[in-house]
Amino acid sequence: MRVCILGGDGYLGWPTAMHFSERGHQVLAVDSCVKRRLEAELSISPLEDVPDFEQRADRWNQLGGNEIKTIRGDIYLEKDLMNEICRQFKPDVIVHYAEQPSAPYSMLNREAAAYTQVNNVVGTLNVMFAMHDHAPQAHLIKLGTMGEYGTPNIDIEEGWITVNHNGRSDRMVYPKRPSSYYHCSKVHDSTNLEFACRSWGLRVTDLNQGVVYGIETSEMARDPQRLRTSFHYDDVFGTVLNRFVVQAVAGVPLTVYGAGGQTRGYLNIKDTLACVEIAALNPADSGEFRVFNQFTEQFSVSDLADRVSRVARRRNIAVETQHIDNPRVEAEKHYYNAVNTSLLDLGLEPHLLDDDVIDGMISRAIAAEDNIRLSSIMPRLNWARGATSAAQLLASRSSAEESTAVLS
Amino acid sequence: MRVCILGGDGYLGWPTAMHFSERGHQVLAVDSCVKRRLEAELSISPLEDVPDFEQRADRWNQLGGNEIKTIRGDIYLEKDLMNEICRQFKPDVIVHYAEQPSAPYSMLNREAAAYTQVNNVVGTLNVMFAMHDHAPQAHLIKLGTMGEYGTPNIDIEEGWITVNHNGRSDRMVYPKRPSSYYHCSKVHDSTNLEFACRSWGLRVTDLNQGVVYGIETSEMARDPQRLRTSFHYDDVFGTVLNRFVVQAVAGVPLTVYGAGGQTRGYLNIKDTLACVEIAALNPADSGEFRVFNQFTEQFSVSDLADRVSRVARRRNIAVETQHIDNPRVEAEKHYYNAVNTSLLDLGLEPHLLDDDVIDGMISRAIAAEDNIRLSSIMPRLNWARGATSAAQLLASRSSAEESTAVLS
Repeated sequence: MRVCILGGDGYLGWPTAMHFSERGHQVLAVDSCVKRRLEAELSISPLEDVPDFEQRADRWNQLGGNEIKTIRGDIYLEKDLMNEICRQFKPDVIVHYAEQPSAPYSMLNREAAAYTQVNNVVGTLNVMFAMHDHAPQAHLIKLGTMGEYGTPNIDIEEGWITVNHNGRSDRMVYPKRPSSYYHCSKVHDSTNLEFACRSWGLRVTDLNQGVVYGIETSEMARDPQRLRTSFHYDDVFGTVLNRFVVQAVAGVPLTVYGAGGQTRGYLNIKDTLACVEIAALNPADSGEFRVFNQFTEQFSVSDLADRVSRVARRRNIAVETQHIDNPRVEAEKHYYNAVNTSLLDLGLEPHLLDDDVIDGMISRAIAAEDNIRLSSIMPRLNWARGATSAAQLLASRSSAEESTAVLS
Repeated sequence: MRVCILGGDGYLGWPTAMHFSERGHQVLAVDSCVKRRLEAELSISPLEDVPDFEQRADRWNQLGGNEIKTIRGDIYLEKDLMNEICRQFKPDVIVHYAEQPSAPYSMLNREAAAYTQVNNVVGTLNVMFAMHDHAPQAHLIKLGTMGEYGTPNIDIEEGWITVNHNGRSDRMVYPKRPSSYYHCSKVHDSTNLEFACRSWGLRVTDLNQGVVYGIETSEMARDPQRLRTSFHYDDVFGTVLNRFVVQAVAGVPLTVYGAGGQTRGYLNIKDTLACVEIAALNPADSGEFRVFNQFTEQFSVSDLADRVSRVARRRNIAVETQHIDNPRVEAEKHYYNAVNTSLLDLGLEPHLLDDDVIDGMISRAIAAEDNIRLSSIMPRLNWARGATSAAQLLASRSSAEESTAVLS
């Protein structure tokens, strides 16, 4: 297959590019690398240095196998880029990770919220129109998030639900309850894509993904330093398991937001790659807006704190847990039961979160201990107060405003 | 009350401004007048000349009563405009009509779809952030559309629905099925606003309005020429009843798209003004995302063609009906039953669509018969084929691209 990876420089995009290349597919990876610029603006860096987009691809291509081609370009700002890609590369599959991925970033201020929504929604519109005009049979695999659903008091189905009401029935889009302007942007994308499937006959798989953890894949093992992906533990791009691992290694308490009962779906990065491959090999039909819930296990925040604590103690690392004010607007104790059978039925074999996986993450964090910046861990933004406290997050507000003004 | 009308130069915005002024409120009307520019680009004009924004306000102010203040400004492009309005005018109520209102326009091409969504979504984000920062107790009355719901096979509730599923239950946002990028933009707004109410405690009433008809209000009667609002019958900004009236007067067949069973909610412009006033006098609670379905009657397209034909024949106008290929993507025969009790319970007394109303519209069309441009009536864009046929719609594609590039 001819596989175009949008966001090919990202935490998931780069490993996905190698994964498809390794399996004999022709891969074009596209990225604007804007996230690296946002990191710099926010004084954030991943735990380990990440080689440049083109450097990683060069290294991979030196090691043999199918070449990964790269384009440094912005699918939102460069209006014709997706048209050119569809015309010249003629993708069978477009895997679309190319969105601003941080919920906290989107809550920063008006500029960041607008940038997140415009970048994500218009970028995806550009993909959709390019497919309509130049690659109508291509299959779009779009990364959504389990966070689109929120925490409803009923079971979470895979994108669609049959609603019975006043003696009648319809199959409807599952009602969403997103909890940040970033999560809202993913709902907007889903709304646009469902319409495009219905009206234009596009083929779309929307992968509502849980929280991904892990930084090891079989492809990366071929040169762990020069092919590595990013490990974020900060308050903007970091995720909770990474944060706990780094806090344990740094000898500071694990910070649980609020009561800690917040339950979400999680999966290993290896399973992300497997799920995307499964979706690619089993495309949606023409006109089908297909939604898979992409996670393998459900954990509460407290569960994760307990597990990291237990594994760290095996290494004689003393770990405490501290409950702090929840900066987010979310239920801290709630019903949560999400369906995830579609990908399992298509053959997904999950890598579960066992102690060895956590221990492996701890090892990596110990090796990079000198890079840990504790100042970037604690949440600097309260989502309910929102914009008014945003200035605190920015080392230099004026420079950030200037750059987001350019972007939005 | 201090009432800010966003989109105060529009078909509904201008009559709303006069309506609140007449009732003793302080009114600030804001408009970029971009719709007049889009009309010019698309070679479209309303049936009757519409005085300029400031001219109409000057005339109203000459006639005495409360002054309507105007600001010509763009709430999307001018990042600080809403902040200034909230700080200086200190609105109790913000009535937000200031969106690109045409579904066919949004389907024109990539640029028009992106402009519609960015203008509408970011404009509304700017309002939300300004309220959060500078007017947290103000009440936002946001115009949505019944078209957000589509035509589900179950009853359409007012924005929220209790879903029973696998033995559990939750009150959820009503699942949407929009049928154009414009309708999608209204769903995006609703998604953002529901989140902002939940997280920031904003007060929002989302008015999911049906198709509005009529061009007469008691305020306009004080100077019908110089206070008038717009009457659009064209394929971009026109609505179906207006089109039928103009076709009858012009002696051409009434063009029914497809089978004609498409059923929607409708209301008289007088009821729009009454509904907005009712919402303003009965504000949403802090943190409440309240949705009213704002229409008074349901008609199918064929119903409307029959009614216009009957009234026209009373004037000895011979009328034929012609079914043409449906340019839209929509069900032409479907279940449709929408709840609209909230506004009635708050005191709305509907003006129903009787023969006199239609006859009054026919009179106006006869008086302006010389202005009728038949070339602008027939749909020039097929929504399923979409972008590739869009070039036909534009008299000058290059000039339109240039201007939407500036806008987006």
